Amino acid sequence: MIVEAVKWIGEVDGFLELIDQRRLPAEFVKIQCRNIEYLYEAIKTLAVRGAPALGVSAAYGLVLAMQKLPADSSLEQALDVLAKAGQLLASSRPTAVNLFWALDRVRRRAESQIGNSKHVLSLAEGSRQAIGDLRQAVLAEANAIYQEDVDMCRQIGQNGERFIQQGSGILTHCNAGALATAGQGTALSVIFEAHKKGKKFRVYVDETRPLLQGSRLTAWELKQANIDVTVICDNMAGWLMKQGKIDMVITGSDRIAANGDAANKIGTYSLSILAKQHGIPFYIAAPSSTFDLNIKSGAEIPIEQREANEVTRFADTQIAPYGIDVYNPAFDITDAKDIAAIITERGVIENLDADSIREYLLFQKTDDRRKKTEDR
Amino acid sequence: MIVEAVKWIGEVDGFLELIDQRRLPAEFVKIQCRNIEYLYEAIKTLAVRGAPALGVSAAYGLVLAMQKLPADSSLEQALDVLAKAGQLLASSRPTAVNLFWALDRVRRRAESQIGNSKHVLSLAEGSRQAIGDLRQAVLAEANAIYQEDVDMCRQIGQNGERFIQQGSGILTHCNAGALATAGQGTALSVIFEAHKKGKKFRVYVDETRPLLQGSRLTAWELKQANIDVTVICDNMAGWLMKQGKIDMVITGSDRIAANGDAANKIGTYSLSILAKQHGIPFYIAAPSSTFDLNIKSGAEIPIEQREANEVTRFADTQIAPYGIDVYNPAFDITDAKDIAAIITERGVIENLDADSIREYLLFQKTDDRRKKTEDR
Repeated sequence: MIVEAVKWIGEVDGFLELIDQRRLPAEFVKIQCRNIEYLYEAIKTLAVRGAPALGVSAAYGLVLAMQKLPADSSLEQALDVLAKAGQLLASSRPTAVNLFWALDRVRRRAESQIGNSKHVLSLAEGSRQAIGDLRQAVLAEANAIYQEDVDMCRQIGQNGERFIQQGSGILTHCNAGALATAGQGTALSVIFEAHKKGKKFRVYVDETRPLLQGSRLTAWELKQANIDVTVICDNMAGWLMKQGKIDMVITGSDRIAANGDAANKIGTYSLSILAKQHGIPFYIAAPSSTFDLNIKSGAEIPIEQREANEVTRFADTQIAPYGIDVYNPAFDITDAKDIAAIITERGVIENLDADSIREYLLFQKTDDRRKKTEDR
Repeated sequence: MIVEAVKWIGEVDGFLELIDQRRLPAEFVKIQCRNIEYLYEAIKTLAVRGAPALGVSAAYGLVLAMQKLPADSSLEQALDVLAKAGQLLASSRPTAVNLFWALDRVRRRAESQIGNSKHVLSLAEGSRQAIGDLRQAVLAEANAIYQEDVDMCRQIGQNGERFIQQGSGILTHCNAGALATAGQGTALSVIFEAHKKGKKFRVYVDETRPLLQGSRLTAWELKQANIDVTVICDNMAGWLMKQGKIDMVITGSDRIAANGDAANKIGTYSLSILAKQHGIPFYIAAPSSTFDLNIKSGAEIPIEQREANEVTRFADTQIAPYGIDVYNPAFDITDAKDIAAIITERGVIENLDADSIREYLLFQKTDDRRKKTEDR
């Protein structure tokens, strides 16, 4: 079974069901968010995490907020409730860009719906019909964001599964899985699709210090899907490669520059170098929205430095001297030249360089537009 | 200050002082071992660790055992006490070869002393003089083992310190320091000697999963010595190298094959590959006794696989799914061709291959023998 990190249950009066990632991997518990304050706490304390999963959760948060709105409210009151709910949710993870994007998208859909109602009502007026329509519009937009994420994840998997051979040893890092998205993840989606095709293989998972997303989350969700998985410490990857146990490395990415340099969880760069030295292909799986063509190369991607105590303390135990200097970058940058291919929902980009990437993204965009036109 | 992991305080009626490494790095506590049962517990529960430190501790354990022997005992009773004490100490860490070696060496010295006493006494007889002489002989041999270790460590440091430049960034892995030896360590001895010469530099310490000897022990003892130190997670090393912050890597070794392939804590192999890719020299510092010329190459060195729960649990917290497969090798093997030099107490071996190593060790041995003869 591929787990579902974020799922809306029911219609406009439903609730949001989350896998409580704070309790993984020791306990598998689903929590029901029936009001926005509860969801706020869940996001803030990392019950739910991962950019796409946060965006979808926040969008449904606005559906929850609308449930509290009395049926005889004015459109003004409705807008006010949406604005306050959006502010609260946005403050839960102040650096989560995808969360802001989703809130903004739902708000614009709500405003557009209110614009329609204003043909018959002023902003200060209300009607059960208008408020009902607004609730439906907010839910519809949240559902659309959810469904796009599900489709995008599956498409990445289908595009990439051919790189996994029967009997392969696959190494991954951090969590680029179902727990980070509404769908079945990015790098792990490739693995899930190969598994669906009946291929047998083994996934080695870097535990991924300091926050252990690999051992806590990735190993857990692969096990839930009945895939053979082995946890290793990050420093064991090279030795596994040397022994011929790894045939490919695949990770997600947080941001990809115009030339193909890719930012991802700290440790990814080391894996790319070790893979190259052992003649092992290194793949990135990520939505095409991860490309930022305004950034020329990885050198321009800022690297967040995180707090020392992520490294020096664990489960209330001090594991390094008090006050010691710590270097704790959240990300590193893998060189485009060391990436065999980037797998997106639109297809696979091999031969990475600025021209081929730009051409690919532009051509595919044109292609998409044409397809949409044809669909009409 | 360079810390002293193991130190005998006083004369034949003295006690063994250990730094309690179970409580590092949160607390710096010295414990006094005044009987062999207490020392047994200290060794078993890792208050003291590291092959040389264990050997020295066990040797002094026999001095403690002799303190309990009544002054009017027979030589037979004395031998019996030594044998039982040796058995107890040997059972504390059943794979610690250096501990057995030290116990054996003290026992042989005691037997030789008893041989001298037998000129005047039978084995069943005793005399205060004979028992007193025996106690002195046991202490003298323990002191000799201790002093040889102290000298060996310092010599390694003096031979290697020239590789550290003013302003260098130095990366080390695991703990090859004063806490593992009676002296000032092996890899860290090189660092301590450079520091004594007034060179300024920064040491980056891999935390060294799964048991965190780097963050818990190495960072602590470097800080005690007032050396600039930064702790990193193991997966950050490559990214540090890429940014030009590392000028050399230096580690210890547990066993070196005749061709120069070196076994050391898991993660060392990855560092050697990353260092090579970034044009950074990789050094091993180890006593010449680490060479095992009966082992042709690293392929013949057996790799101990350790328990899964070292990786899956930390401080009573489950950090990976219950029952998950784990790969947890204790060591890996670094290829001789990726080692710039091996620094021993006898000198530095560059150009590593089977012929040069054999020649070096044999020539140096001859040289040592000549020197000893001249000293007489």
